[in-house]
Amino acid sequence: MESLPHCETLLLEKQGPALLVTINRPDVRNAMSLQMVAELSTVFAQIEADPIIRAVVLRGAGGHFCAGGDIKDMAGARTQPAADGEADPFYRLNRAFGQMIQQVNESSKVVIAVIEGAVMGGGFGLACVSDVALAGPTAKFGMPETSLGIIPAQIAPFVVERIGLTQARRLALLGLKIGAAEAERLGIVHQTADSDGQLEELLAQALERVRHCAPGATAETKALLHRVGKEPMSGLLDSAAEKFAQAVRGTEGNEGTMAFMQKRPPKWAEND
Amino acid sequence: MESLPHCETLLLEKQGPALLVTINRPDVRNAMSLQMVAELSTVFAQIEADPIIRAVVLRGAGGHFCAGGDIKDMAGARTQPAADGEADPFYRLNRAFGQMIQQVNESSKVVIAVIEGAVMGGGFGLACVSDVALAGPTAKFGMPETSLGIIPAQIAPFVVERIGLTQARRLALLGLKIGAAEAERLGIVHQTADSDGQLEELLAQALERVRHCAPGATAETKALLHRVGKEPMSGLLDSAAEKFAQAVRGTEGNEGTMAFMQKRPPKWAEND
Amino acid sequence: MESLPHCETLLLEKQGPALLVTINRPDVRNAMSLQMVAELSTVFAQIEADPIIRAVVLRGAGGHFCAGGDIKDMAGARTQPAADGEADPFYRLNRAFGQMIQQVNESSKVVIAVIEGAVMGGGFGLACVSDVALAGPTAKFGMPETSLGIIPAQIAPFVVERIGLTQARRLALLGLKIGAAEAERLGIVHQTADSDGQLEELLAQALERVRHCAPGATAETKALLHRVGKEPMSGLLDSAAEKFAQAVRGTEGNEGTMAFMQKRPPKWAEND
Repeated sequence: MESLPHCETLLLEKQGPALLVTINRPDVRNAMSLQMVAELSTVFAQIEADPIIRAVVLRGAGGHFCAGGDIKDMAGARTQPAADGEADPFYRLNRAFGQMIQQVNESSKVVIAVIEGAVMGGGFGLACVSDVALAGPTAKFGMPETSLGIIPAQIAPFVVERIGLTQARRLALLGLKIGAAEAERLGIVHQTADSDGQLEELLAQALERVRHCAPGATAETKALLHRVGKEPMSGLLDSAAEKFAQAVRGTEGNEGTMAFMQKRPPKWAEND
Repeated sequence: MESLPHCETLLLEKQGPALLVTINRPDVRNAMSLQMVAELSTVFAQIEADPIIRAVVLRGAGGHFCAGGDIKDMAGARTQPAADGEADPFYRLNRAFGQMIQQVNESSKVVIAVIEGAVMGGGFGLACVSDVALAGPTAKFGMPETSLGIIPAQIAPFVVERIGLTQARRLALLGLKIGAAEAERLGIVHQTADSDGQLEELLAQALERVRHCAPGATAETKALLHRVGKEPMSGLLDSAAEKFAQAVRGTEGNEGTMAFMQKRPPKWAEND
Repeated sequence: MESLPHCETLLLEKQGPALLVTINRPDVRNAMSLQMVAELSTVFAQIEADPIIRAVVLRGAGGHFCAGGDIKDMAGARTQPAADGEADPFYRLNRAFGQMIQQVNESSKVVIAVIEGAVMGGGFGLACVSDVALAGPTAKFGMPETSLGIIPAQIAPFVVERIGLTQARRLALLGLKIGAAEAERLGIVHQTADSDGQLEELLAQALERVRHCAPGATAETKALLHRVGKEPMSGLLDSAAEKFAQAVRGTEGNEGTMAFMQKRPPKWAEND
């Protein structure tokens, strides 16, 4: 990547094979604005073409991950009537967020969420599309929408994909808030840390594992995982076997085989 | 609702925004009869049109939730041969139960199951379609069908939807009985109580949460959750964004926004 | 079954209603060879027609379940270029394994995996299609493929079906190894034993449960479970009600009803 895009709501930093993305609106607990949605979308689009980046670390500045939708954007949309032939501004606001979530979900990079404080509404949705979710001791998760008379429209579907209908219906219909331990038990996050120090340690371990895995094979595997349950299993396995043959005969497959036989780490696992 | 339907197998009581439905055949551990299936179906159909009712509390009289299918109905069906051009009485008996289960699953109200004692066969199926399932210390869950030479035909599919194929195949194929703690671990129930008193407390907390959530938004959210995995995600999110725009511009969305800005509870959360 | 097939990579032993299948290549930690895939496929095909066999117990000789794909088969495929009009040898190698996994998954018998030591790659996939998975204290599970530059093509889809996308994406994309306790928590295995003795006890308990359940009803139930989520629920329940009527009027249904009324065990539950 020649240069990172300029962002007003995000801090971006490259750290070896990882891009650190810090949501940076701490005064509003990193509420998700239209601009933030657009900037996240731009960043994830740009890194798709960047072979150096293998992982994206998503976190929030100031002790909160993301407290949900931005009140000002909501107020702005309310003052705009839906013009003839155009989508309702609330529709556009809501759908743009969902499109970004889908993009993050299907990113070819390993997405690691580091989660503290408020993880509400849109922030909850964003956490639910990470490949690895690590929670600190202060994390609080919830979908408060129905208590405000609205619906978790772009969020609830990803919560169902994350933890299944059984747990999602209780959380969404009662508008519950839950802590990190329950979130781990339900499968929202993979690991919880007792302290800030341990949280950073879990992150370092995850990034170390990313370094040991071949980038192309990782991206192919992630794409394969997303197809399960959306097409018949036999056809999926046929297609997976083709990709297996390509992978094993490709550059990474050759290097992996050589490194294994020569009892050395493969090139992708070397420290920069 | 002008008046509640007359039922012989169910006790009905309105309590604020909740309808309490008590299965009342304690002499047969609340075994599920054809009449009970019909009465549950009538009750759930009637309350769909009743805006006052926001939650249904399902429980059993005499310390048991429901011990499964009724032996007398089974014996009655056995004596009837399948007449020409008519469905086998066993088919009708079984399918009617499944239709009632589907109706409860998709009820627009929040369905809370309060579960004690035997939760077998059809009772297990009924527990598996609740939005919130609370178990007392005596609860025992199982699908004994295959040990009787028959199959959990209308039940097993809802168990798979509830806890996934992996756990369902072990429970169904071994005809196991499990207690409340394991049922919570597998996701059959959401919470377990150590005592009768705590069970009532968990119920009161769930009903209090229902009161804080807008009824229309809750119903829309529940319908949305049920669509996940049954249609492509993009189209689902398009439709959800439309419903979001309607909700936010509707009566509940307006009241919720006003209440939030005025730092007061919204009307739907007021005590009666 | 007149006689068991002759196998070089498997030990076969009939024990009452169970067929014990022991993967027997302990010198290579029971790595999955093309021959082993073919022999497992033959065994599972043959027992489909054998009414005596009600359960298959899968385990590995020498303290390991199965350490993944065989290096020699991989090397052999590498030296063969993909001939004109023929599938790449890597494609055939990989797809044959997936076909065997699908066959085990859909076997009409109750498949019980007894899991110790290495459960890697293909071994992990095989464990994920069992009806009951019992792990000993030494079990270690993982998909190391991406760390070798290749992809868990025929395995990852069954891991997603087993434990859901959320946990599968972390395990597969980080190439993690996990122990028995975490495997139970994630739902890969159903029970874990603290000792070899307890592992045998859990197996004996599972086989005892198989004996109490009618073989035909068990096979119908398993087939039904596999259909959930792959077709609309209403049609599935219609079909299930037909199978219910057949089961209840069939030999097993009659015997089960009689045994229940006569307070005696049904014939299928008698000790041989």
